[in-house]
Amino acid sequence: MLSKSQIKLIKSLTQKKFRNTHELFVVEGIKGIGEFLNSEIELVTLYTTGESFEVDPEKVVEIDEKELKKISSLKTPQKALAIFEIPANKEVKLNDLVVALDGIRDPGNLGTIIRLCDWFGVEELICSSDTVDCFNPKVIQATMGSLARVNVTYLDLEDFLTRHNSSSIMGTMLEGENVYLSELPQKGIVIFGNEANGISPEIGKFLHQRIHIPQFGKIKKTESLNVATATSIILSEIRRSSFTEKQN
Amino acid sequence: MLSKSQIKLIKSLTQKKFRNTHELFVVEGIKGIGEFLNSEIELVTLYTTGESFEVDPEKVVEIDEKELKKISSLKTPQKALAIFEIPANKEVKLNDLVVALDGIRDPGNLGTIIRLCDWFGVEELICSSDTVDCFNPKVIQATMGSLARVNVTYLDLEDFLTRHNSSSIMGTMLEGENVYLSELPQKGIVIFGNEANGISPEIGKFLHQRIHIPQFGKIKKTESLNVATATSIILSEIRRSSFTEKQN
Repeated sequence: MLSKSQIKLIKSLTQKKFRNTHELFVVEGIKGIGEFLNSEIELVTLYTTGESFEVDPEKVVEIDEKELKKISSLKTPQKALAIFEIPANKEVKLNDLVVALDGIRDPGNLGTIIRLCDWFGVEELICSSDTVDCFNPKVIQATMGSLARVNVTYLDLEDFLTRHNSSSIMGTMLEGENVYLSELPQKGIVIFGNEANGISPEIGKFLHQRIHIPQFGKIKKTESLNVATATSIILSEIRRSSFTEKQN
Repeated sequence: MLSKSQIKLIKSLTQKKFRNTHELFVVEGIKGIGEFLNSEIELVTLYTTGESFEVDPEKVVEIDEKELKKISSLKTPQKALAIFEIPANKEVKLNDLVVALDGIRDPGNLGTIIRLCDWFGVEELICSSDTVDCFNPKVIQATMGSLARVNVTYLDLEDFLTRHNSSSIMGTMLEGENVYLSELPQKGIVIFGNEANGISPEIGKFLHQRIHIPQFGKIKKTESLNVATATSIILSEIRRSSFTEKQN
């Protein structure tokens, strides 16, 4: 049975300010919840319509479909909904590749990028303060659980880059060198910019290496690649060398 | 001034069966409309709230914001809406790279893949009959005009592959060879499969080359890459050799 105050709390978590106040976020669906249960992130309460999970029974609340509908933000609720604690900020480890985002606004893009980081073994994702919140329900849905394995840190990107200026810092810019002909470092920071404006001038000045993905075909009219698509191509280009260098 | 029958016709075009009956589709927004006006696709009527376009004035209908709202399928209508003729099927040219889709269901994925074809100079996209319709308004929005430059043909994919079995046919499969270590042909057909099930067994039997994108990182748990992401990586891998082979 769900109390009115529980419903109110859960529904409030669709908004960033309440997620930050309560330090809580919502995951929906059996698969997504399972991925977070397998991570270090702490479960607070699990609401389920019958699906069983291997968790502390004191944290489980059995509800019916009608109640789930009241707290779900999905058109078709997915049998279970869980509340987890937003983890405390961890130190950003700079000993491997780090992806940095400068003002990404679209939740779907951020979700796809988190999934790509997970696929390409990037454990650290740093986001400028104006990047969309990774605990936004739409981001959570788009990550398919990858958020449980990628450490996402929000910070003042300009300040961070000033302090870590000795790392290799690269980013995609229209006037950059052809990525297919570039030597790409396996460590360091790779920056992707806002959907409409790309990397901002304040951040662009930190770049040691500017790369771009060339366009093919006779008619060159496609305005730009979507940022998540560009991320997939650049991460693939960086990681492929771990195979191809062994070959040469 | 908009007549009731015009409103009814335009609104009916959100549905595939009416698009097919009338052989018409809708494009919204100045930029998207501009891209189609620059293509071979025939304009039928342009509804505008004041924005001027270089088209036959007889095809232009001035309307107000309120009327645009009535015919738009966007939350925030974009100043203009145009109706174009669905072009007649053109012959599929097999002298370059052709992308084939086997049962893609998500309009956003199809839109992104059309945009990728445009970026990577792929002029021919063939879709199995059960792939989402490329004139679906959500696909049109996601393509950002690329649809005006990519020839999309719906056909019986099994039949098509039977007839063109002498072409190089490749596709992504979980048990495929590492794409980074594969020799990828610059011509031929590359197939991408359904979001949930991948390439179907009926289509899989035609593959001469099975490739896969390896996963990186210590923990390998990401279930799969989104099909549009996989398309971007594979097309990038195919096209990159036009630069790198010249280098070696």
